[in-house]
Amino acid sequence: MIIVMQKGASQEALAEVEKKIVELGYQPHVIHGETRNVVGAVGDERGKEKLQALESLPGVERVVPILKPYKLASREVQPQPSAIEIAPGLAIGGKEFIVVAGPCAVESREQICETAVAVKKSGARLLRGGAYKPRTSPYSFQGMEEDGLKLLAEARELTGLPIVTEVVNPRDVELVAKYADIMQVGARNTQNFALLKMLGQLDKPILLKRGMAVTIQEFLMSAEYILSEGNRKVILCERGIRTFETATRNTLDISAVPVLKQHTHLPVMIDPSHATGHAHLVAPMCYAAAAAGADGLLVEVHPCPEKATSDGPQSLRPAEFQEMMDKLRAFAQVAGREMAG
Amino acid sequence: MIIVMQKGASQEALAEVEKKIVELGYQPHVIHGETRNVVGAVGDERGKEKLQALESLPGVERVVPILKPYKLASREVQPQPSAIEIAPGLAIGGKEFIVVAGPCAVESREQICETAVAVKKSGARLLRGGAYKPRTSPYSFQGMEEDGLKLLAEARELTGLPIVTEVVNPRDVELVAKYADIMQVGARNTQNFALLKMLGQLDKPILLKRGMAVTIQEFLMSAEYILSEGNRKVILCERGIRTFETATRNTLDISAVPVLKQHTHLPVMIDPSHATGHAHLVAPMCYAAAAAGADGLLVEVHPCPEKATSDGPQSLRPAEFQEMMDKLRAFAQVAGREMAG
Amino acid sequence: MIIVMQKGASQEALAEVEKKIVELGYQPHVIHGETRNVVGAVGDERGKEKLQALESLPGVERVVPILKPYKLASREVQPQPSAIEIAPGLAIGGKEFIVVAGPCAVESREQICETAVAVKKSGARLLRGGAYKPRTSPYSFQGMEEDGLKLLAEARELTGLPIVTEVVNPRDVELVAKYADIMQVGARNTQNFALLKMLGQLDKPILLKRGMAVTIQEFLMSAEYILSEGNRKVILCERGIRTFETATRNTLDISAVPVLKQHTHLPVMIDPSHATGHAHLVAPMCYAAAAAGADGLLVEVHPCPEKATSDGPQSLRPAEFQEMMDKLRAFAQVAGREMAG
Amino acid sequence: MIIVMQKGASQEALAEVEKKIVELGYQPHVIHGETRNVVGAVGDERGKEKLQALESLPGVERVVPILKPYKLASREVQPQPSAIEIAPGLAIGGKEFIVVAGPCAVESREQICETAVAVKKSGARLLRGGAYKPRTSPYSFQGMEEDGLKLLAEARELTGLPIVTEVVNPRDVELVAKYADIMQVGARNTQNFALLKMLGQLDKPILLKRGMAVTIQEFLMSAEYILSEGNRKVILCERGIRTFETATRNTLDISAVPVLKQHTHLPVMIDPSHATGHAHLVAPMCYAAAAAGADGLLVEVHPCPEKATSDGPQSLRPAEFQEMMDKLRAFAQVAGREMAG
Repeated sequence: MIIVMQKGASQEALAEVEKKIVELGYQPHVIHGETRNVVGAVGDERGKEKLQALESLPGVERVVPILKPYKLASREVQPQPSAIEIAPGLAIGGKEFIVVAGPCAVESREQICETAVAVKKSGARLLRGGAYKPRTSPYSFQGMEEDGLKLLAEARELTGLPIVTEVVNPRDVELVAKYADIMQVGARNTQNFALLKMLGQLDKPILLKRGMAVTIQEFLMSAEYILSEGNRKVILCERGIRTFETATRNTLDISAVPVLKQHTHLPVMIDPSHATGHAHLVAPMCYAAAAAGADGLLVEVHPCPEKATSDGPQSLRPAEFQEMMDKLRAFAQVAGREMAG
Repeated sequence: MIIVMQKGASQEALAEVEKKIVELGYQPHVIHGETRNVVGAVGDERGKEKLQALESLPGVERVVPILKPYKLASREVQPQPSAIEIAPGLAIGGKEFIVVAGPCAVESREQICETAVAVKKSGARLLRGGAYKPRTSPYSFQGMEEDGLKLLAEARELTGLPIVTEVVNPRDVELVAKYADIMQVGARNTQNFALLKMLGQLDKPILLKRGMAVTIQEFLMSAEYILSEGNRKVILCERGIRTFETATRNTLDISAVPVLKQHTHLPVMIDPSHATGHAHLVAPMCYAAAAAGADGLLVEVHPCPEKATSDGPQSLRPAEFQEMMDKLRAFAQVAGREMAG
Repeated sequence: MIIVMQKGASQEALAEVEKKIVELGYQPHVIHGETRNVVGAVGDERGKEKLQALESLPGVERVVPILKPYKLASREVQPQPSAIEIAPGLAIGGKEFIVVAGPCAVESREQICETAVAVKKSGARLLRGGAYKPRTSPYSFQGMEEDGLKLLAEARELTGLPIVTEVVNPRDVELVAKYADIMQVGARNTQNFALLKMLGQLDKPILLKRGMAVTIQEFLMSAEYILSEGNRKVILCERGIRTFETATRNTLDISAVPVLKQHTHLPVMIDPSHATGHAHLVAPMCYAAAAAGADGLLVEVHPCPEKATSDGPQSLRPAEFQEMMDKLRAFAQVAGREMAG
Repeated sequence: MIIVMQKGASQEALAEVEKKIVELGYQPHVIHGETRNVVGAVGDERGKEKLQALESLPGVERVVPILKPYKLASREVQPQPSAIEIAPGLAIGGKEFIVVAGPCAVESREQICETAVAVKKSGARLLRGGAYKPRTSPYSFQGMEEDGLKLLAEARELTGLPIVTEVVNPRDVELVAKYADIMQVGARNTQNFALLKMLGQLDKPILLKRGMAVTIQEFLMSAEYILSEGNRKVILCERGIRTFETATRNTLDISAVPVLKQHTHLPVMIDPSHATGHAHLVAPMCYAAAAAGADGLLVEVHPCPEKATSDGPQSLRPAEFQEMMDKLRAFAQVAGREMAG
């Protein structure tokens, strides 16, 4: 932390700041500037946020944090990238570029099984599908709940594809964990810390989506919640942030990929479907994600988007998905990745 | 809904759109334009979001929703404003301008009781204080939990002030409800629909904060979740949205007050402490809120901000709070409101 | 500036940073931390941005600016507030709360004169009206240009109200200055530095609007452009920033008032018409602005908003303006300000 | 335009809206809904913004624009993509993927010539460099002005690379046009309509950057300003938008590429240097841009970034640029593009 004193702050004010820094267990280190003084507080990071409260002392202009507040998620603790194993021969964050595909919501046995077979054929390595849907409107379809989980399990049995599905309530963690291969935390729950803590106690991979107004640093702090509870299998997923632009549902922050890769060892995926909100924008964003160095993709595929109960406009038809995958393979290869199929 | 067809879309494409509209239970109504056609879909609103999926049909450029998706929260259903009774002689949304004050987090018996006595003396009508704290960092103080609730209850007994406290986990709803007079939903949980549904089953006032990236329409949809479960005692609270500006912690959207007042009958409060993040900005925003027509305020007050475990920089000292309240009273009066004391 | 070194950066890298700091004319001051070192660069501020380029040196993690980059606009250079005199007995930034009112664009003699008479009667102290209109579309009405300026001058003669009008092209500065009492810089030109430099050479008050994506610090740097050329008569105007919210045209950043008041001696006005975009939201935002401590308002008034060539939806009718002014007077008084009439 | 009436609006209000629509030259078309009526206004688009003012009429809830306000920039007017010829055998928007490279600002003969030789060797097809710099601070280096233009011309003579350079003042258009092969409009001038109109009268390619808070629709309206004056040689450039995220200087809106490609025939380039602000993030964003379907890149290259007068932290060294170009070539090829060298 750097404490910036006001211009003309008194010697007493400076002394008080130094005293408080010592009380909090840090060493103060004053730099006497031409117009004002600044004080560095040196010491172990944990709990350093208490220093922020020094902003309330007389003569203090502001307190500037210098260091990153996360540890377990950082490259400093683990320099080499994490590859999270999902199943034998299937890891996210390794050499293989992984595509997860499927409908927004599980709607019926036919729908989920037909989709699973189709996306597997095109090269998807996992199946996605929501059984619990966090919908903006209470009057919208809220998901098939456990029946949906059972249908996902059937589709897995049929195709061999492991399943990724969302959990929205701490109460359902145990139930969803019985079915899911990867538990997904949606964008509205990135800072649902009660949920994150429970997921931190599982021994199961967690796909953590970035919230619409969550900074990259806050995103890593949410990952830290899971990691600090003991579960080291966290996969990050950028899915668009909220901006003033309305041509897309959200704005895909593609530069989050190299920024995250610089700061964390955790794998990074991209969800171009929620980011853009329109099917015809999905394929170019898939290619961009592979080129930018992402570890994989989540893509919405629906056999009949115009009949989907949710997110129809952003879902690819199986034939469109196939076409995208064929081209994606070449981009992934240039990016130094392999793809199945 | 208005379905806008692409320029040069075929007669078949138009016919298909009309057919689907009928299938979904609406009446299509075509307006033939000079360069393209648009189709209105007329009918009952519930479930209309399925029409959005028509964007996937050939020849469709986009689907434009026309009507508001909320009902129970709207002025159309209830034209007169709701006044939510908290205790005998104490209502939010009525003639009285209500100030809720207290520390960010309950830290000790001394801290909460000293604060309660001070804010009551200055005219606060309810006491706030967090026992469960949703903190960005897992290494930050997470709240005293039930011990904190007990201390709040003691402070209530001491002063007679009803208490407002946050619930963050659906699991804790029952426990928190035993102590709280108003259950608060924080900004990170505005779209925690599992939590909202549980709160909708209580017979207790809910203070619902607006999330940092939640539009006013989505905010009202979150209120609708609670209302549609049967609990009609919802109080809205604007507390700043996330923008590019960093001089303040968030950007207080003061125009949300008249916008909400136009669309909903629910009371609207303002939290200037979280919105600005700096104590010296709080008082002007309190005055602005009263002038803009808000029904009340949530203000953070701490006996010793430089020692606060959270949000010290934005907390008023009791003397500063007293000074603010004295001036606030005059603004509230011009706004046609009464204040206690 | 604080230069943060990477964890494990070599002694050579640190020595190189110190050497460069000396070369640039500053004194380096190293704080040895537990996990990394930070270096303070102490010295005169001007040109300090060159230090930013040190981020390119090996071993440097990032460079953190500590001090504000503006001087003449700051409270440190001039602690007491500036009151800008517009005409004898009329100053912005003094004891009087000033309302500027008029149509978005000058459309005809009748329109501008009728409006001028009406707003004067209600207590406005200056007349606004655009003769050069920066419109998003090349096909929209672009203003009456010099004919509009002449009509403004007629309205001034008729009512005695000084006029505020926008200049959009450096080429027109001289011409507009012949007519205007205050030259307005619109939100799209806040960072049109060529225009600002020319205005800095005038001896005439400049009303500088904040751009839609301009931070408060950048806003003050734009004021600094004018001030540093010698013109000290700068009036700031917040008119809404661009956010994700679409219920209002922009989001009025009301907390910009106390933030600006803290950092600068320049007067601060509010434009609630462009901020909200809807007439029925204007009055509450006028009251909020006065309560928050603004020095005045710019309000759009049109005798017949449904026929306005631009910004009709956000214009008050004269009767609505009268009603607003009556209530505003009481709020301004509580805020310690006087109003004419 | 769609005019949405309020619930319960009277027959008279509806009749008045229909009357006004006719007066403005459109045909009204009423859809009678279950809870309210909506009125479509059918007719030629030009000047349709006057319909927006109908929002001021009694009984009108809001006015919803349906169609895009630009014409010449649209795919509807010109379905096939525009390839803008810069020099014989060199076009932007054609089969070749074009890289423009060079320093932020021209600083000296050695600097610009050394850079020009280096970037040409690596495959850049044009040289960029600023002679007029729009800097946030009046105390920062403002560019070498005409001396800088002359040095750019020397570098062009030396290498044969055409030059791209910025113009910031309508007054300098003629002068800059004497030297530049492409005139650049920077992000702060995207809505400097006075400048755009002058550039519309040239017969020279214009590289128009997107402003930090400019929507894609507004961006195309700015292009329309140039096109409507007669200059059809407009090249669009996305360079990051302003969001809440601070890990990058701006947020690169990579999905703007396919959105723009859908709506306009104009070429689309990406500037990853200004978008990210950090050299180590530039290469991944170059690859992403090529994969997403952009027509080319603007990349900042400086022989010695730690000594740059501006934008040092985001500039690549020549060796880094070379490495990036080698890998970029493979991505461009997969995207169906050719690259020189």
